[in-house]
Amino acid sequence: MAKGQKNAISPTREEDFPEWYQQVVRNADLAENSEVRGCMVIKPWGYGLWEKMQQQLDRMFKDTGHKNAYFPLLIPVSYLEKEATHVEGFATECAVVTHHRLELNADGKMVPSGKLTEPYVIRPTSETIIGAAFARWTQSYRDLPLLINQWANVMRWEMRPRLFLRTAEFLWQEGHTAHETKEEAIEETHKMHEVYETFLRDHLAIPVIPGEKTEAERFPGALNTFTVEAMVQDRKAIQAGTSHFLGQNFSKAAGIEYESREGKREHAWTTSWGVSTRMIGTLLMAHADDDGLVLPPRVAPTQVVIIPVTPKPEHRDTVLPVCEDLAAKLKGQIFHGSPLEVEIDGRDIGGGTKNWEWIKKGVPVRIEIGPRDIEKGSVALSRRDRGPKEKAFIPGDEAVSGIVDMLQEIQDGLLARATEFRDQHTVEIKDMDEFRKFFTPKNPDKPEIHGGFALVRWAGSAEDEKTLQTELGVTVRCIPKDPAIRGEAKGKCIYTGKDAEGRVIFAKSY
Amino acid sequence: MAKGQKNAISPTREEDFPEWYQQVVRNADLAENSEVRGCMVIKPWGYGLWEKMQQQLDRMFKDTGHKNAYFPLLIPVSYLEKEATHVEGFATECAVVTHHRLELNADGKMVPSGKLTEPYVIRPTSETIIGAAFARWTQSYRDLPLLINQWANVMRWEMRPRLFLRTAEFLWQEGHTAHETKEEAIEETHKMHEVYETFLRDHLAIPVIPGEKTEAERFPGALNTFTVEAMVQDRKAIQAGTSHFLGQNFSKAAGIEYESREGKREHAWTTSWGVSTRMIGTLLMAHADDDGLVLPPRVAPTQVVIIPVTPKPEHRDTVLPVCEDLAAKLKGQIFHGSPLEVEIDGRDIGGGTKNWEWIKKGVPVRIEIGPRDIEKGSVALSRRDRGPKEKAFIPGDEAVSGIVDMLQEIQDGLLARATEFRDQHTVEIKDMDEFRKFFTPKNPDKPEIHGGFALVRWAGSAEDEKTLQTELGVTVRCIPKDPAIRGEAKGKCIYTGKDAEGRVIFAKSY
Repeated sequence: MAKGQKNAISPTREEDFPEWYQQVVRNADLAENSEVRGCMVIKPWGYGLWEKMQQQLDRMFKDTGHKNAYFPLLIPVSYLEKEATHVEGFATECAVVTHHRLELNADGKMVPSGKLTEPYVIRPTSETIIGAAFARWTQSYRDLPLLINQWANVMRWEMRPRLFLRTAEFLWQEGHTAHETKEEAIEETHKMHEVYETFLRDHLAIPVIPGEKTEAERFPGALNTFTVEAMVQDRKAIQAGTSHFLGQNFSKAAGIEYESREGKREHAWTTSWGVSTRMIGTLLMAHADDDGLVLPPRVAPTQVVIIPVTPKPEHRDTVLPVCEDLAAKLKGQIFHGSPLEVEIDGRDIGGGTKNWEWIKKGVPVRIEIGPRDIEKGSVALSRRDRGPKEKAFIPGDEAVSGIVDMLQEIQDGLLARATEFRDQHTVEIKDMDEFRKFFTPKNPDKPEIHGGFALVRWAGSAEDEKTLQTELGVTVRCIPKDPAIRGEAKGKCIYTGKDAEGRVIFAKSY
Repeated sequence: MAKGQKNAISPTREEDFPEWYQQVVRNADLAENSEVRGCMVIKPWGYGLWEKMQQQLDRMFKDTGHKNAYFPLLIPVSYLEKEATHVEGFATECAVVTHHRLELNADGKMVPSGKLTEPYVIRPTSETIIGAAFARWTQSYRDLPLLINQWANVMRWEMRPRLFLRTAEFLWQEGHTAHETKEEAIEETHKMHEVYETFLRDHLAIPVIPGEKTEAERFPGALNTFTVEAMVQDRKAIQAGTSHFLGQNFSKAAGIEYESREGKREHAWTTSWGVSTRMIGTLLMAHADDDGLVLPPRVAPTQVVIIPVTPKPEHRDTVLPVCEDLAAKLKGQIFHGSPLEVEIDGRDIGGGTKNWEWIKKGVPVRIEIGPRDIEKGSVALSRRDRGPKEKAFIPGDEAVSGIVDMLQEIQDGLLARATEFRDQHTVEIKDMDEFRKFFTPKNPDKPEIHGGFALVRWAGSAEDEKTLQTELGVTVRCIPKDPAIRGEAKGKCIYTGKDAEGRVIFAKSY
């Protein structure tokens, strides 16, 4: 941290939110840009966070009856052509493989050769290729339901990439299921929508608003798209996960047919659902502060870091064993079913530098132990959800016995803070003047500062949404599922004046 | 199983080993070919097996100080050009991305558009792109060692694909490390070589021979390549994992420089090491029999399957609760640190069909429970390493208390059987006539049946190896690490008559 600077991250959120975001990513050592256009390198701390998310989501998918499988990276272009809506929505910007060989040319350059008869695209999503497999696997109603998930990399050519939020290549999971009846498929769509809501709330401490997308924001080819929408600290919305009811659109395109209980040929009903490494960007913008990342304990790759303080080299011999003993005791504690992740930072660099590195990485609890602490029989404990200089001097055993409750308190505190923030910036709006004012930045230098989530009665068309998007940069984020947010049934649409069934959420979004 | 057929898999290993392999893959529901040339679909049972391998290897990598990260899928062609040996070995057959868009042409077809100024290849391996990142991350000796692993998909265009053994796209892990000194990098190369040996032996029950590759079989760009070579049931060798000491070749090509303790600019010393989904093919060919897959308990996605036997529908109410009770008790048992994986197959299809499905899938232990078993207070237990009709009728509680020991006994038994097979077909050979006879099939209709591993004194050149490969289809699999296999120092080379330092292993291979 530079002298005279008040916070570890510069600029602050207030000063320049987009640049603050980049600086938090960089200072927490989460990821970096690569020389490959739009593709990032996910560094160990960022990948460790993704692994935690992955393990916990994977458990939830398996507990709801799903199995993992793996499908080809490449998709024949002809597959994309099968489902018309889907191809319009997806096939435009993607990486196209046209050759299967490189050859040295006369100038000593490697050039493509071995032209393919049919080009492939690198999967932007796998509905079409998984649909082809499901068609092979489904003969009878006895083969259904198929409940499959894939963890994979996907690629969509992005013109304005931004680490985690919008990258050409990203990592994700995509669930794909096929069912005998419409009702079962709809039930599955809702079930996975709830899994995402639970995961975001209880694991990432993000109070999302679950709801349905309007036609304008629906997944290409889906009949219904359900979303969980988070508000981040610049009051914008971010779609954190989606669950789609695909009806029979994809099963008809791919030929997923089965013999029904009545002996008739029927098309299966399918769903798909996914979350991606974008969630890391969401997490950052939901909880990080002007000192860097703030991680909810449940997904922190390291939950407690122990920093030995050894002003003189000879202190190492007394301090390190005490640190190791404490680490062993902490690792014996169980938090949400897993032993605590504890790291001793024994690197031979200054204690202050180390301490700030861990603050910027967002580790929930830091424990410093030096020769004077050992004399007094205490440790110096700091929480990432408190000020960077706030320390509690407590006996080591107390740190151990209290750690699980403390981590849960931090977890709950982050959720409470994010919920309060969201509620503060969610406003019911009843006329268009007010609506325009809500979304117009007070300060033209800071276009990102605006009102937040607007709860409005809406009966407009997809075209009306388009108009408002062009004018104010806002879209309907969702038709909320919760009746309390959706509001009572009667009322007039804010835009068209038509009868509106309830309220929707309008917001600017990532 | 067809009537009159003695075994579940047709043809048998004896009758047609390559076709038997395909049938075991199909009958165990591990994977299938896709419409994308050379790319497979890994089905849930195959992927479940890969997940087990992955979790256990990942633990071993982390315990040896490595962290996971993720690097771009696409590699600029110019990167490949940097390391000359590497490009010769790799860049020829690979998927080339030349465009970033699809457009509808006048015929209503989707065609590539948006030509890239520089083409990319889909990573065949990531030394070059990870090298570029390491160059950014390394300023001082304090930044070393870098100990990174990546779990990823890679692609090499294969002309004769074969499920798991040789596919265009496959899944793998690739470790990449950079060190301050040559000695540390060599130590790392050996350490990971040992991790693979341990994993193959103790987890997959495959008694590999660890050793070094000769120049002819070395990784392009490596100074030393260490391998673990397995013998499978057609007596061929398969390379199950490799660990490479790359010297400073890649660090010079990528510019991985650091300031040394003496304040000088130095190039780092690097290593790389990997295993892939090919290991599933190896596992199959090492242990499967004429009834299908045989899984070592440590990596079986399901270790115990419970099959309720309900001749009449009304039996379900009495039988199912007993099955669930037994499953709960079994899940409480810990095998190698994890709770047992137990599945109840409650599907409404015939008991015989179910039983054979699980035999073909290779589940280590099957337990059948029917109304008569309940009356007698016993269960019918079958082990996959015994005959398909062999059953032990024992009390349910005895099945629970004895299960962990039984699984370990099965695990050990598979290793013992594979070791015996390998030793039986490993022969010291002292002259070229004998050598030729050893590798010439007795029956021209079954070209795969030959002697096995030939232990011979060798001092030939890479060219001599090439000659023997052309003549007999054999290569030096490795220079064994174990002095007992390598043999005493003195002796003459079987081929050149020159002084040879010890014995090497020649074999046909996958």
